[in-house]
Amino acid sequence: MTSPYNRRDFLKTLGAASLAAGPLLNGCGRLSSSGRKPNVVIIFADDLGYGDIGVYGHPTINTPHLDRMAAEGQKWTNFYVAASVCTPSRAGLLTGRLPVRSGMCSDVEGVLYPNSTGGLPANEVTMAEALKSQDYATACVGKWHLGHLPPYLPTANGFDSYFGIPYSNDMCSTRPDWPDYERTFDPKSEYWNVPLMRNEEIVERPTDQTSLTRRYTEEAVRFIQNNIENPFFLYLAHNMPHIPLFASDSFDGKSRRGLYGDVIEEIDWSVGQVLSTLRKEGLAENTLVVFTSDNGPWLYFLHHGGSAGLLREGKDTAWEGGFREPGLFWWPGTIRPGVVSQMGSTLDLFPTVCHLAGVEIPDDRIMDGLDLRPALLGSGKSPRDTMFYYIGTRLYAVRKGPFKAHFTTITEPFRPGSRSVIHDPPLLFNLEHDPSEKYDVAADHPDVIADIINEVERHKANLVPGEDQLAKR
Amino acid sequence: MTSPYNRRDFLKTLGAASLAAGPLLNGCGRLSSSGRKPNVVIIFADDLGYGDIGVYGHPTINTPHLDRMAAEGQKWTNFYVAASVCTPSRAGLLTGRLPVRSGMCSDVEGVLYPNSTGGLPANEVTMAEALKSQDYATACVGKWHLGHLPPYLPTANGFDSYFGIPYSNDMCSTRPDWPDYERTFDPKSEYWNVPLMRNEEIVERPTDQTSLTRRYTEEAVRFIQNNIENPFFLYLAHNMPHIPLFASDSFDGKSRRGLYGDVIEEIDWSVGQVLSTLRKEGLAENTLVVFTSDNGPWLYFLHHGGSAGLLREGKDTAWEGGFREPGLFWWPGTIRPGVVSQMGSTLDLFPTVCHLAGVEIPDDRIMDGLDLRPALLGSGKSPRDTMFYYIGTRLYAVRKGPFKAHFTTITEPFRPGSRSVIHDPPLLFNLEHDPSEKYDVAADHPDVIADIINEVERHKANLVPGEDQLAKR
Repeated sequence: MTSPYNRRDFLKTLGAASLAAGPLLNGCGRLSSSGRKPNVVIIFADDLGYGDIGVYGHPTINTPHLDRMAAEGQKWTNFYVAASVCTPSRAGLLTGRLPVRSGMCSDVEGVLYPNSTGGLPANEVTMAEALKSQDYATACVGKWHLGHLPPYLPTANGFDSYFGIPYSNDMCSTRPDWPDYERTFDPKSEYWNVPLMRNEEIVERPTDQTSLTRRYTEEAVRFIQNNIENPFFLYLAHNMPHIPLFASDSFDGKSRRGLYGDVIEEIDWSVGQVLSTLRKEGLAENTLVVFTSDNGPWLYFLHHGGSAGLLREGKDTAWEGGFREPGLFWWPGTIRPGVVSQMGSTLDLFPTVCHLAGVEIPDDRIMDGLDLRPALLGSGKSPRDTMFYYIGTRLYAVRKGPFKAHFTTITEPFRPGSRSVIHDPPLLFNLEHDPSEKYDVAADHPDVIADIINEVERHKANLVPGEDQLAKR
Repeated sequence: MTSPYNRRDFLKTLGAASLAAGPLLNGCGRLSSSGRKPNVVIIFADDLGYGDIGVYGHPTINTPHLDRMAAEGQKWTNFYVAASVCTPSRAGLLTGRLPVRSGMCSDVEGVLYPNSTGGLPANEVTMAEALKSQDYATACVGKWHLGHLPPYLPTANGFDSYFGIPYSNDMCSTRPDWPDYERTFDPKSEYWNVPLMRNEEIVERPTDQTSLTRRYTEEAVRFIQNNIENPFFLYLAHNMPHIPLFASDSFDGKSRRGLYGDVIEEIDWSVGQVLSTLRKEGLAENTLVVFTSDNGPWLYFLHHGGSAGLLREGKDTAWEGGFREPGLFWWPGTIRPGVVSQMGSTLDLFPTVCHLAGVEIPDDRIMDGLDLRPALLGSGKSPRDTMFYYIGTRLYAVRKGPFKAHFTTITEPFRPGSRSVIHDPPLLFNLEHDPSEKYDVAADHPDVIADIINEVERHKANLVPGEDQLAKR
C-alpha cells in the first residue's frame, strides 16, 4: 500500500466536496453553455508509432479523420506516455501517477500476462473513479491490461461497463510448439485463445479478432447515444495495431501500407465514427476527445510494426520512439486549434480531466500529472517541463526542457543479444534541435547534466516504489 | 545538341500555334472564370528534407502557412525530384526532362561551380520560355544554378527578370585556408564571396545572406503586384536551407529547432506572404502555387542539415531521403484538397503547367514529365508509375509502382570512405509498405525485378545522354 487513503473513502469525500461546491463545480470545473459538465472521450491505440498517421508524416497510411481532428483541434508534437510498454503506460494514464509508484511496472516482467495474479492496486484512484464522484457515466471499451482477475477488472475500477479483451491480443497462444513470431505475419484469430469480456464475463473465446475494431466502435457509439442527457467518460482503448494484426473485411487489403495500414485506417474510420456521432448528437461542443497511443511501434515485428517517423527506435526503449506519441485534443469551440510543441503527457490527462469536471485531485498521494488546461484553452503554457523515462523500475532517461539525458540505453531491444549499457556521464541530446537523438552534446553542457542529476535526486527523494504487481503469480 | 530543334524557332512556332488556337487555348488550356490564363508560382526550397515541415511530421519547426497551404490544397506524399543534388534537379524541373538528356549532370562534378563554364544548353526549352509563348510575365527570384555566364542566366532562358544568386550560397569561400565544414556551424556572410545579381549584373558581393529570404520575398510580392492584369510565372527558388544557414533578425534565434528551424520558419513566413498577396489581390482562384524542394537534407552537416523524416538517408543518395520531397499544390476552387499518395515529380510540372496555360509541349524531344492534371483537378489519377534515380549519368535505382530496385548504393555519402556498392540482384523494397527502405524483399519477387530490368532496358533504348555541361572549365 503506497497510501493509507482508502479508495471507498476517497470517493465518498469527493461526492461530499462536490455537493458542497454546488453548481459552479468548486470554481475549478468547466460548465458548458448548456450547464453540463464536459464529456470526456479518450481514444487509446496500442503500439502506434509517432509517424503512423498522415498528419504526423506517414506517406501511405490514409487517415483523413485523424488529420481533420488535428486541424480542428490541437496537434501536440512533444506528447509522452508514462512507459514504453503496455501495462505501466495504461496505469499511468488512468491514475496520473508514474507506474513505479503503483507497482504497475517491474524488473521481472514487462507487462501482465494471463498467468499473472496481480493488477492495479485498490488504493489507486482511476480517472473513471474520480469522474464517478461527479456522476459521470463511464465505459471502458477495448483492451484493459491492468489485471484480468475480478478485483482488477474495469468494473472494479470505476467503469460502469466493460467490453473488450483483458490483456494483449498476442497472449494465450494455442500452439505453443509454433513460434509466435512467425505466425504473427500470417495471423488467424484461432492462433490466440484470447477471451472477449463483457463486464466480468467471458463472452467469446477465442475472440474473433478481425471484427474487434468494428465492434469496439459500435459499442462506443451506442454508449454515447445512450448518454446524451448526462456527462460521460468513454475510454476507448483499441488493442490494435499491436500484433497480431487484424482488420475487418471492409479494410483488409485496402490500404497502400499493407495489413498494418489497413488496421490504422480502420482505427481512423473508428475515430471518424465517434466524432461524427458527437456532432450528430449535438455533443461536439461539450466533449473533450483525446487521441494517443500507449507506446511506440514494435519494430521487432518489421512491416507488421509501425514507424516512429523521425524519432529514434520504438517500444520498450527510452528513446523518443518508445515514449513520444501522437497527441490530438479536440473540443470544438473550446480548444484553440493549432500545433503545440510544448511538453505534455498521458500522465497529465487525469488532473486535466479532473479540473475540467470539477473533481478534486486526491491530495494524499503524489500526482505526477499536471494540469494542461492553460495550453488547451489558450490561456497560457503547458506546465510540463520534465519527463521521466522508466523501463521497469529503473530510470533510464530524463528530459528537462529541451535536453534529455540517457543514463542507460538498451541495445537491440527484444533480440537475443539485447543488453543494457550504462552511460556515465549520460548521453545528452537537445530534442528540440535534434529530435532524432543523433548528436550527443554532453561534452558541451556539463551544467545541464548537473541540473538533470539534481532533478533526479529531487525526484528520487520522494519516490516510494509500489509493491511489484507484475511479478505476482 | 540533343535535338535539331532551335529554341528561337520553337518559341516562334508556339506563338503562331497560340494565335491560331484562339481564346480557348487550343482545347487543352484552362481559362478561369475571368477569362484569364492561370498564373503559376513555383516555390522551390534548397536541401529541405521530407520531414522538415509541420504537416510532414516535424515536431519543433513551426510552419503554419505551409500547413494551411496543405490543408487548403493537395499534400503529395510520393513526390520526387529529378536528381538528389542541386543543378540537375533544377534542370529537370525547368525542362521536364531528365538531366541526363540535357547534359546537366555529370560523373565528374556533382553540380556547377564558380569556375564552371557550362550551363543549360540553348536548345533546351524552359518552363519560362514555354509560358512566354502565351505572353506570360516571367520572373526568377532566388538561386539559379544552371550556369552563371551570360548565355546561361535566367534572362537568357525565358525569364523577363532575375534577382538572386547564380549558384550555391556556400561557394566562393573567402578563406580557403579555413575548412568550410567548420565555419558552416557559425556562419557569417563575409565568409563566402557570393554574388547577388539583378538580371545580368552583380549588384552586391559578398551577398548579405541574412536578408536574402526577406529580399526574395519582397521581390516576389512586388512582381505579383505588378502583374495583376496579365498572367505571370514566378519561380521563387530560395537558396535556403542549404548551408551556410542564415535567417533575418526577425527569425534568428526564434524557433525551437535552432538556426535550421529559424530558416525554415522564415521560408514559411515567405510562403504566407506570397499566398496572402495572391488572396489580397484577388488572384488566389486564378493561380497555381506549388511548393517543393530540389533534393533531400544534407545530413553531413548534422543539426545544420534537415531531416528526411521516416525516409532513409538524404542528399546525393538514391535512397528516398534524397529524392522524395514535400509537394504541395494550392489553387483554391480548382485543386481538390486532400492527401495524394500517388507518384508525382518535379519533372511533371513542365507538361502540367503547359497544359494549364495552353502551351503545346515540344514534340521534337523526349519529355520525361507527365501531365498531373487528372490528379490535381480530381478527374482521375496521376499517370506516373515509374521513377528513375540517377546520380550523375548513372542509374542507381528505379521505382515502378510500389517497388524500388537499387542497382547501386553509396555508403557514407560525402565522407572520406564513401564508395559505390553494386547489387546483383538489386535490393528491392516495397515503398508503400516500407517507406523507410528497411526490408529487402528481392528474394520474394524475382518477377518484379525482371519487370523493372525490362523497364530499364526500354528506358535506355531511347536515351541519348547530353554533352556533359558540368565538367566544362
